[in-house]
Amino acid sequence: MWRLLASEERHIYPVNPNVSEIMGRAAYARLSDIPDSIDLAVIVVRASLVATVLQECIQKEVKAAVVVSGGFSETGESGSELEAELVNIARQGGIRFIGPNTMGHADTSSHISTLAWTMEITPGPVALITQSGNLGNRILLAGMNLGIGFSKFISAGNEANLRLEDYLEYLAGDENTRIITAYIEGLREGRRFFKLAKEVTAKKPVVVIKAGGTAESARAARSHTGALTGSEAVYAAAFRQTGVIKVDDDDELCDVVVALLHQPLPRGNRIGILAIGGGLGVVAAEDCEREGLAVAALTSATIEKLSALLPSRWPGANPVDMVGINATVDNSLVLSSLWALMEDDNIDAVLLQAPVAFGTNLLTRIFHFNTEEIEIFEEKQKRNLSLLRQRVAECGKPVFVVMPVNDLETNTYLLREKIPAYTSPRRAARVLRHLVWYKRYLDSSQK
Amino acid sequence: MWRLLASEERHIYPVNPNVSEIMGRAAYARLSDIPDSIDLAVIVVRASLVATVLQECIQKEVKAAVVVSGGFSETGESGSELEAELVNIARQGGIRFIGPNTMGHADTSSHISTLAWTMEITPGPVALITQSGNLGNRILLAGMNLGIGFSKFISAGNEANLRLEDYLEYLAGDENTRIITAYIEGLREGRRFFKLAKEVTAKKPVVVIKAGGTAESARAARSHTGALTGSEAVYAAAFRQTGVIKVDDDDELCDVVVALLHQPLPRGNRIGILAIGGGLGVVAAEDCEREGLAVAALTSATIEKLSALLPSRWPGANPVDMVGINATVDNSLVLSSLWALMEDDNIDAVLLQAPVAFGTNLLTRIFHFNTEEIEIFEEKQKRNLSLLRQRVAECGKPVFVVMPVNDLETNTYLLREKIPAYTSPRRAARVLRHLVWYKRYLDSSQK
Repeated sequence: MWRLLASEERHIYPVNPNVSEIMGRAAYARLSDIPDSIDLAVIVVRASLVATVLQECIQKEVKAAVVVSGGFSETGESGSELEAELVNIARQGGIRFIGPNTMGHADTSSHISTLAWTMEITPGPVALITQSGNLGNRILLAGMNLGIGFSKFISAGNEANLRLEDYLEYLAGDENTRIITAYIEGLREGRRFFKLAKEVTAKKPVVVIKAGGTAESARAARSHTGALTGSEAVYAAAFRQTGVIKVDDDDELCDVVVALLHQPLPRGNRIGILAIGGGLGVVAAEDCEREGLAVAALTSATIEKLSALLPSRWPGANPVDMVGINATVDNSLVLSSLWALMEDDNIDAVLLQAPVAFGTNLLTRIFHFNTEEIEIFEEKQKRNLSLLRQRVAECGKPVFVVMPVNDLETNTYLLREKIPAYTSPRRAARVLRHLVWYKRYLDSSQK
Repeated sequence: MWRLLASEERHIYPVNPNVSEIMGRAAYARLSDIPDSIDLAVIVVRASLVATVLQECIQKEVKAAVVVSGGFSETGESGSELEAELVNIARQGGIRFIGPNTMGHADTSSHISTLAWTMEITPGPVALITQSGNLGNRILLAGMNLGIGFSKFISAGNEANLRLEDYLEYLAGDENTRIITAYIEGLREGRRFFKLAKEVTAKKPVVVIKAGGTAESARAARSHTGALTGSEAVYAAAFRQTGVIKVDDDDELCDVVVALLHQPLPRGNRIGILAIGGGLGVVAAEDCEREGLAVAALTSATIEKLSALLPSRWPGANPVDMVGINATVDNSLVLSSLWALMEDDNIDAVLLQAPVAFGTNLLTRIFHFNTEEIEIFEEKQKRNLSLLRQRVAECGKPVFVVMPVNDLETNTYLLREKIPAYTSPRRAARVLRHLVWYKRYLDSSQK
């Protein structure tokens, strides 16, 4: 925590009555001994002492606190009484706090973190509110692995004072946040969330995991954060009516965020599929249909263009099987075919079952490229991908690349050019379904 | 192809009437000029010449061929006629062949490969028959990334002569193959497959992707391999009745194979969940229930054991939330809790929502471990994992580890100790569902 709290413009004052020094800094016996005004108090004492410390904060005119301590409403009746006391003290004293039972929070723009782990969080436009610190941690790790950067991380804890709805309201106006994500077990202010979410999703996408939708998981959630998970159907309807994108797990959350970050929303659900092999087209078509997307009917103009590019035995329809052209090293024919699909008025988005050679790691393994060959290839590939990004921006249609393996090097390579890459057409199709739905929601709510 | 075909005990004879040398080897004008007997012919000439070459093979008494050439039944009527001709020639001449329109095949035990790509295939006990070369290639890549080794790879092509059923029959008796996997668009000998599969699955697990289950994907499959994909319900029933594990895509196929390779089959569907955070337990419970698994009720003996190990505020039930114990660096408490769950008679399998620190890569990033600290940690971790593997073997219950990120280094680390690691509880729960189903099939078919 020290490492990320401290900075040149910022002072940290450890408070502990039993020691004179903590990690090289002079410790104060009590808050009132500190010869400075305090902006934020981070409280990590045992549960029974938190109320006293909070009162000391109020005397010191501290306006904000993070209560990391656990042992409150999540543990049962006596804990709930202790928590109610905190709520009263805070209301009367005019202090707001995160927690209790929180893992802390982080703000990458002001370089502050009250988290116990000292991992650097990549800055970026995605905010994460989480009702589970550990799950939030996983989303951060998985997200950063996919090139996602974060603006704020908030482990909401028991939400005794500040609640998920407060964070949502704040993030709606936060200029560093472009996409809001959340892990939700239960909402404490359903009506407020409903009203807020409707306003927020008109400006920024909101992507949530809602857990506790089954009997045993709901029971587990009660003993975790004391949340009432409520009826799954009610939550689903609320999200649907307010434009909130509901995903199933953290993998899917990250997949959707990557697409929202780098791609335009598709105008409709008609998908063009370009595959460097017949079977790859078959599975992609199946995955699209299972997700409620349409396999687009190609215009005759597109069929003509593709017939001029591809061997005569190409199937003449979508999915477009490039029938074994050597696309592994030279992608130019893949790109020409891709442009043809992007220009088709019947197509709203393109799914590319890509050649394996979008990354040099794989090239080295499969084709035994030497350093010079890799350099030439990379240069060319960089130009191609940059061209692809430009075309996506021009025609306003998303292109989703499906790559064979979850290979960090390849992902990074594509993400540098803002091209989302997915490990399977199923994952890509699921994300497309969410984007199509969100676009339709936006269109219908603006009428 | 050369690289993997050639060896000290093996001779390659290039045949081409137009050149005298190919890649440093003397080329023969025709097959009959070769002064040696031939075990296998690899035919890569244009479609119209294949029949003649096949006849030359028969005159030379070649018993087996791989027809890579395309342009047969996958292209329409005239191609189908050409293909029928090959079938007749082969039948009369007593030669068997893979293809046409195949990507080739590989056999890691005899170090032979007729594939165009020269990537090394990790040897191992998993065979793959695929009706799409490109998709098969992806499965190989993704599988090897997860530590899966392969015995045979067969790109079946148009199956004019040798069919998927032939390969299945062969692999059933292949001592190098312990698990059989397949990508299927359509079966040409349904009854034979049914009979064979029933026999094979009693001895070896068979895991298949069946594609073409939707309208557009079925149409695409027809123009890919000419396969009639048939009724999805009929295929599903056939797989169910013969013990064939049907998965949705290549990710799921690899997930299931990793489990089959390294873990015993669970005796039932009652899952114990150990989580290093409440939210992680909630989502794991939900994923298990959604996959038809039961969140096991702990015996009172287990509750006693865990109460002696964990802070008093642990929820006292499954999922077992370890309530914020510091499990990130020291896993000993995680292991003791794990043993308690494995010893519980109410539990058939354990899902561990693991601390992030199972891999050193993450430790370096999160905790800034130095080299010495990593060495100490790795030594300890190695002992712990080896102990875990031993316990799994002793009590015959699978343990599935869920890790936050698809991190090759971490995966390798766990797989070295034969512990399957999954990126999400959803993926782990899906695999458990398949294993539970397969175990039940085996139990009921043995009665």
